[in-house]
Amino acid sequence: MKNSYIIGVGLIGGSLALAIRELFPETKIFGLDHNDTHLDEAMTLGLIDSKATYEDLANADVVVLSIPVDVAIVELPKVLDAIAKDTLVIDVGSTKAPICISVENHPNRRNFLATHPIAGTEFSGPKAAIHGLFRNKTNIICEVEKTAFKLQEKALKLFDRLGMRIRYMNPEAHDKHIAYVSHLSHISSFMLGKTVIEKEKNERDIFDMAGSGFASTVRLAKSSPEMWTPIFMQNKNNVIETLEEYIQNLTQFKKLMQDNDFETIRSEMYNTNHIKDILSGID
Amino acid sequence: MKNSYIIGVGLIGGSLALAIRELFPETKIFGLDHNDTHLDEAMTLGLIDSKATYEDLANADVVVLSIPVDVAIVELPKVLDAIAKDTLVIDVGSTKAPICISVENHPNRRNFLATHPIAGTEFSGPKAAIHGLFRNKTNIICEVEKTAFKLQEKALKLFDRLGMRIRYMNPEAHDKHIAYVSHLSHISSFMLGKTVIEKEKNERDIFDMAGSGFASTVRLAKSSPEMWTPIFMQNKNNVIETLEEYIQNLTQFKKLMQDNDFETIRSEMYNTNHIKDILSGID
Repeated sequence: MKNSYIIGVGLIGGSLALAIRELFPETKIFGLDHNDTHLDEAMTLGLIDSKATYEDLANADVVVLSIPVDVAIVELPKVLDAIAKDTLVIDVGSTKAPICISVENHPNRRNFLATHPIAGTEFSGPKAAIHGLFRNKTNIICEVEKTAFKLQEKALKLFDRLGMRIRYMNPEAHDKHIAYVSHLSHISSFMLGKTVIEKEKNERDIFDMAGSGFASTVRLAKSSPEMWTPIFMQNKNNVIETLEEYIQNLTQFKKLMQDNDFETIRSEMYNTNHIKDILSGID
Repeated sequence: MKNSYIIGVGLIGGSLALAIRELFPETKIFGLDHNDTHLDEAMTLGLIDSKATYEDLANADVVVLSIPVDVAIVELPKVLDAIAKDTLVIDVGSTKAPICISVENHPNRRNFLATHPIAGTEFSGPKAAIHGLFRNKTNIICEVEKTAFKLQEKALKLFDRLGMRIRYMNPEAHDKHIAYVSHLSHISSFMLGKTVIEKEKNERDIFDMAGSGFASTVRLAKSSPEMWTPIFMQNKNNVIETLEEYIQNLTQFKKLMQDNDFETIRSEMYNTNHIKDILSGID
């Protein structure tokens, strides 16, 4: 890899830049971003070597598209228009069906690999980039069969060096499952934060009485609205389904409390404790 | 402090035992627990020096009551019956009105101090006890004026040595606020875990696709049902109120999605991002 281009030098793009620099020291890393301040920051932080434009993409070995998912579906076709024959283009968005549809008939579809690295934090922007973000994380790859075999190999080699586990899935299954294990968590967290902020106008009270448990459940409410609004938009139907089930479970819990049926509450909590085993590999 | 008695040698009682041993090496620490296996574990782990019975409480300088809140209101009067004139008794439960009511007319009410250390983890039992759990944490004290002045002093000295900040509050205000910043978080987490487990029968899928964000929001769903069922029972009215507001906010979010009003969703998320500043002292 001689030339890597990162479109969107935020948390994910920036962390990938850090990893590529470490693993492939010979690679020159170029950055593109609609936010020029972010590009300057990325230069200062040493994430990228130079700024670039779409015209430069013809020189790219690898292009990483790490921008909000609504912009990604507009930009990806332009990226595929601009690249050379052997350029690998990967995206890293949290929804996969819309981006796959956006290029399904593009003449350079075989240069593109749709991925979703399950990695990140609640922070955003170049300063949020961190070393080793992808190590031991899962990368979900969609529609692998639509990517040229040589470019699949190139991508898998990169992910292997990053220390990632690979899992293949079709875009529809990805979007459905991810609504449960990621998108719903963000809404539950944002609405928990909202409920508490609304009630507790005196912030000093929240601060004093809130412990690490509360901090943990509302952590995702710090996430970027610019990133998450388009995710909810693109995965609307799946997310609404998860929300309906979540609201139904909360409503049932409330009813059990109103009915003083604390034995059922106790046994429901025991059943859900089982999440310990499921999560043992993540924490 | 010559003799400290810990009734309930779990996460909180055990961590207090560790701290007392470190800060007051001359103190002999006795343990009481309805679970004899836990008592043996607490001995093996060096949390306590000996087992004890209620008859021994007459020798206590300090008694810590760290058991589920439904048992606490039954046991506290018995503890106050058993102690000597200068014994300090503190409880550490997550609800404060019921325990204060349970001893409001007890002849030894002035030996008791109602506290709630905002400290803990999702784990329980003696093995969950950790060093330094209380350092830089808040301790909420209720009805301080009902405790003998000398025993207030003794307790404050202990909390100061533990490194805790003190905040005074009446029991009703405590129970109302804590429903928002602690009890609701546990329900949102348990119900999130339930929703995902119900949907994703194939656990391998959850495990592979879930990241640190999901792990963070469902962390509290690992909590002990034996501890939390009685908390929900005792704080029923406040918790139901928080649940209603939370469900209302989630339902409104769902409606905004159904109406494609993603601009309002974006601005709601921006408003809630403000939780960053509120939490900056906790994380």
